[in-house]
Amino acid sequence: MATNRYTSAARFRAELRRFLRESEDCARAHGLTPRQHLLLLQIAGAADRTTTVTELVTTLALTQSAVTELVQRAEAAGLVQRTPSATDGRVMHLTLTRDGEAKLEAVHVALGPERTRLREVMDALGDK
Amino acid sequence: MATNRYTSAARFRAELRRFLRESEDCARAHGLTPRQHLLLLQIAGAADRTTTVTELVTTLALTQSAVTELVQRAEAAGLVQRTPSATDGRVMHLTLTRDGEAKLEAVHVALGPERTRLREVMDALGDK
Repeated sequence: MATNRYTSAARFRAELRRFLRESEDCARAHGLTPRQHLLLLQIAGAADRTTTVTELVTTLALTQSAVTELVQRAEAAGLVQRTPSATDGRVMHLTLTRDGEAKLEAVHVALGPERTRLREVMDALGDK
Repeated sequence: MATNRYTSAARFRAELRRFLRESEDCARAHGLTPRQHLLLLQIAGAADRTTTVTELVTTLALTQSAVTELVQRAEAAGLVQRTPSATDGRVMHLTLTRDGEAKLEAVHVALGPERTRLREVMDALGDK
């Protein structure tokens, strides 16, 4: 097939949109909003499996107020819990509840083939 | 830093969100909506630099009606032109106008460092 300077970027974006769409559908099928899924993933994937609202502003690429609201709703839904820092009582450490862990794991396992596919496609695109 | 089974996926998603945010900001800075940018990229990156609404439904992961509206607005904005297929008059081939080409190129060049960074981060994550 004929390729040009935009071919690689176009295929990457098409695969990415497919992956993100699958991920969103998968999260909803397991009772999570797409943002809740990403929230749980960022908490679980952090060092010591705990993080803060300030760190989430960076990793989720959302505003402070959007993260705060997301965390509050996830806490109300029983997915996340907040614990005051032992060294600074103004800082809250976020961790997953058992239910949050279980739902994240279910989505993560279900998305395994999609992650593999995306990696293979991106490797194949290489530096073209 | 301590890692766990979610660390790699969490970092990938964080970098991806950063990349997509940068891409959206860059498109807007050049007078395109984020979706228009992706539309122009998919047309330019297709074989022979032309594509159809049907193909865009797949590559943009949008509904037929969303793609149709996106194309109509891009045509009204002077970014895209439609030409009836020589072999099937019911099919319209989409190509970029000169202005569409120029705007896509400007965004594509500006995003070059971001694409490189994303590729490096993803390569570094590997199969962890």
